[in-house]
Amino acid sequence: MQYKYVIVGAGITGLTIAQKIASELDEKVLVIEKRGHIGGNCYDYYEQSGVLVHKYGPHIFHTTSKRAYDYLSQFTKWNDYQHRVLTYVDGNLLPMPICARTINMLYNLNLSTQEVEGFLKGVADSSREIKTSEDVVISKAGEYIYEKFFRHYTKKQWDMYPSELDPSVISRVPIRYNTDERYFTDQYQGMPSAGYAHMFGNMVKSENIKILLNTDYKEVIGDIEYDKLIYTGPIDYFFDYTFGKLKYRSIDVVFETKDTCDYQPASVVNYPNDYDFTRITEFKKLTWQKHDKTVICKEYPTWEGDPYYPVPIDAQKKLYAQYKEKADASKNVVFAGRLAEYKYYNMDAALLSALELFDTQINV
Amino acid sequence: MQYKYVIVGAGITGLTIAQKIASELDEKVLVIEKRGHIGGNCYDYYEQSGVLVHKYGPHIFHTTSKRAYDYLSQFTKWNDYQHRVLTYVDGNLLPMPICARTINMLYNLNLSTQEVEGFLKGVADSSREIKTSEDVVISKAGEYIYEKFFRHYTKKQWDMYPSELDPSVISRVPIRYNTDERYFTDQYQGMPSAGYAHMFGNMVKSENIKILLNTDYKEVIGDIEYDKLIYTGPIDYFFDYTFGKLKYRSIDVVFETKDTCDYQPASVVNYPNDYDFTRITEFKKLTWQKHDKTVICKEYPTWEGDPYYPVPIDAQKKLYAQYKEKADASKNVVFAGRLAEYKYYNMDAALLSALELFDTQINV
Repeated sequence: MQYKYVIVGAGITGLTIAQKIASELDEKVLVIEKRGHIGGNCYDYYEQSGVLVHKYGPHIFHTTSKRAYDYLSQFTKWNDYQHRVLTYVDGNLLPMPICARTINMLYNLNLSTQEVEGFLKGVADSSREIKTSEDVVISKAGEYIYEKFFRHYTKKQWDMYPSELDPSVISRVPIRYNTDERYFTDQYQGMPSAGYAHMFGNMVKSENIKILLNTDYKEVIGDIEYDKLIYTGPIDYFFDYTFGKLKYRSIDVVFETKDTCDYQPASVVNYPNDYDFTRITEFKKLTWQKHDKTVICKEYPTWEGDPYYPVPIDAQKKLYAQYKEKADASKNVVFAGRLAEYKYYNMDAALLSALELFDTQINV
Repeated sequence: MQYKYVIVGAGITGLTIAQKIASELDEKVLVIEKRGHIGGNCYDYYEQSGVLVHKYGPHIFHTTSKRAYDYLSQFTKWNDYQHRVLTYVDGNLLPMPICARTINMLYNLNLSTQEVEGFLKGVADSSREIKTSEDVVISKAGEYIYEKFFRHYTKKQWDMYPSELDPSVISRVPIRYNTDERYFTDQYQGMPSAGYAHMFGNMVKSENIKILLNTDYKEVIGDIEYDKLIYTGPIDYFFDYTFGKLKYRSIDVVFETKDTCDYQPASVVNYPNDYDFTRITEFKKLTWQKHDKTVICKEYPTWEGDPYYPVPIDAQKKLYAQYKEKADASKNVVFAGRLAEYKYYNMDAALLSALELFDTQINV
């Protein structure tokens, strides 16, 4: 079999590159996907009761990039959902990230936004040296907020305390002094109005895009001639784990259908200190679907299962660097996406990286 | 590439055979499908507003076969929908097929079931010689019922009047004297409770089943070694239209989303005499989905578009016979299903035929 382009993996990275090859180069491309569906971890489907859910946990699209938003808008309309998260602390639901109302609720105060900044600086240990994620939080917001919001949540999420993690891990979570309670402040936010799977289906509608499902690429790649392979699977698997396995954190997503229209007051509620799951998502509040039942999911982080998150510790970065060296030496193979680059990409970042890759390494 | 078994077409016939090969023989099988989805014309999906619809028009599963029902029940639960159809005649909605209430409404009578039989025999022309579908109806129910229910509907459906069609075409539509207003009287009826696509997805969950989408089998078959090819596509296409094209009747299915919970009093309403479409289906009444909007489809039969129905006229049967002879002489190729056998199969018949084929020609 001959295809000029072969892509391994039908996640957002692989499908974006396939779509560009098919539409702009008008070339045939074969996408090989291990799972029985396209869309990678963004995949959604209507479960038994008819409620749209995200199979691999909640995915909320948000970006500051007009390019990313415009690109996807070719394939979907959007609902204009803006993400909000509450955190369950000592029996109360507090806005997350930390903002003026979080502080006022937590300390039972009634501070203005101007006063919040002063208050937080008062409780923070700003002279602390920043070596770990723990230091990041304590230097900005003090021990109490660290304990109530971050310490145990991080332990559940990573099986490590913030004191064991690089500062960059928690730096992604902002602390605000104002009244903006949105989880993201990106200019473009929303959910594909008929779902992610529908959007991805529109991306691959071209006859140029052939999709081989349920297939580990190693089963077939020896029988395929290609000019260029775009590999979006785990990089260590590509090299047969030569240097050992890279660690990925995974999530066991457990769904529950509730015989009620409304389950919780936000689409996502974090549980830093209670239970073993990290958070509960109620999908209808993301998708704006109307239904007389509702479906939630609880997320239990685990070291088993499908790879979700590269682990942000030095030993893993070093191991990845070894693979990266081999990857850079591979002819006719491009490594792209979260699993192949061992890098935490948000959806928009994965998309932009794929567009960039197409421009610089394929359409040349 | 090597696969012991290659199946062309991911409709009910192809998927059933694939499922049996994967599970009972524990062999790998490649399914090549021209469209971007599996499930053939049974495919359903949630459209933009979140209502589950059948992309290629309504499909209601019904069978007298416990074997067929039990087989599919491995992959789905069912709602216990029993199909009912109303026919719009002169401004009234009458039960279809013709039964006691149809007669009473049509003639403004109040006959008992015993009296209906006598009445119908009185209006029927029972001595008529049966040469065409027109004769079938008139001999059983007379000219008036023929005119109001059958003549124009058949013309829309087949672009031919019943007088031009074999008796077998309308013999499928029964005329009853009793109060059973169900469209089918089969012991097993229902809809897959999470939809057809979901059921088919469960059928192909095996790692043994590889699915190549968006691919005309001729693009790749030259590069694949196989022991046996199971071909479920159009038989004339397989032989490059050597003897000319077989005719298929198609349907242009036009969807409309209505901003109301309830559109019509039955899942299907036939329009024999009004409009250009044959019928309107309201999907929620089949699927029992609750939703504050509803989606209907109108069916416009056409000679263009995807092949749906083999045309039951002699010229086509003769043309098919020529292809059949070539098919019988083909080594290592099995022809199966509606398109390859040029035969009107209901879903259960296609399924049973596929199971039989597996038992007699594959698992040997």
